[in-house]
Amino acid sequence: MNCPAARALERVGEWWSILILRDAFHGLSRFDEFQASLGIATNILTRRLKHLTENGLLERCRYNERPPRYEYRLTPQGRDFFPVLAALLAWGNRHLTPDGISVQLADRESGRLLEPILVDRNTGKPITPDNVTLQPGPTASAKVRARAARIRERHASASFQDKESGT
Amino acid sequence: MNCPAARALERVGEWWSILILRDAFHGLSRFDEFQASLGIATNILTRRLKHLTENGLLERCRYNERPPRYEYRLTPQGRDFFPVLAALLAWGNRHLTPDGISVQLADRESGRLLEPILVDRNTGKPITPDNVTLQPGPTASAKVRARAARIRERHASASFQDKESGT
Repeated sequence: MNCPAARALERVGEWWSILILRDAFHGLSRFDEFQASLGIATNILTRRLKHLTENGLLERCRYNERPPRYEYRLTPQGRDFFPVLAALLAWGNRHLTPDGISVQLADRESGRLLEPILVDRNTGKPITPDNVTLQPGPTASAKVRARAARIRERHASASFQDKESGT
Repeated sequence: MNCPAARALERVGEWWSILILRDAFHGLSRFDEFQASLGIATNILTRRLKHLTENGLLERCRYNERPPRYEYRLTPQGRDFFPVLAALLAWGNRHLTPDGISVQLADRESGRLLEPILVDRNTGKPITPDNVTLQPGPTASAKVRARAARIRERHASASFQDKESGT
């Protein structure tokens, strides 16, 4: 798995895991809370929480000594997954709301609704499929390098055609 | 499924589908190309492409008349999924690169490396788990309203505690 997006998916585990992380961002932390929220079989939930914990997105903390009780909290790595969830939410709201919006992100202080877009941290310029390309890094496999080269060729030829046709 | 993020996941289908979309952003369009890239069983690939097509993320276009040959292209809705993939890639690069970066996003014109962050389209302010809250919309279910209310209570009490402790 030389692709960081594929690695990210593998690390998270599967579909249910993303909803567990969503719930954790909503402040849920206990097994019973996740179970009630997701309506998921307990053995699956156990496995998913274990996977997320072992992979560093959640940490298991004891919140009661007698009897011993544990809760699951987002680690810094887990909190950093937030943009993926926010991007999913924004996409769902743009394309899958035939009956209207059920929930959206708002600024915590002002309550103003937010419209998440992706920009470059340094320039503030929006990042879109039309203005990016893939840059192989130091550990790129031959396959990744070949793919990046093909993508760049395609972009170069598309850009040339645009200039030829004056657009 | 009253949650737009959960709906988005359902719409896309499953893990493989995200890698198919990634490949489509890389310019792949034909069955054989996806198959070679993903090393996926043909029956699974067929099912995934069908799901993505029926759900409006890809469209199936005939590119050759005799014999009839089809390719799969991203629809506008599919192209709009880009921020989810870019966010996954960025997360993977930040957390899952023990041996170094294999591939990253760069500006197509300048070649400068990009660091994707999520901001509000109107204000340009970064969107983080610490400055957002959930706002129920017109079609929110009772469950969604109750959850949003709990989240707001928690934020309000956290903010009160911050002020009390002078942070």
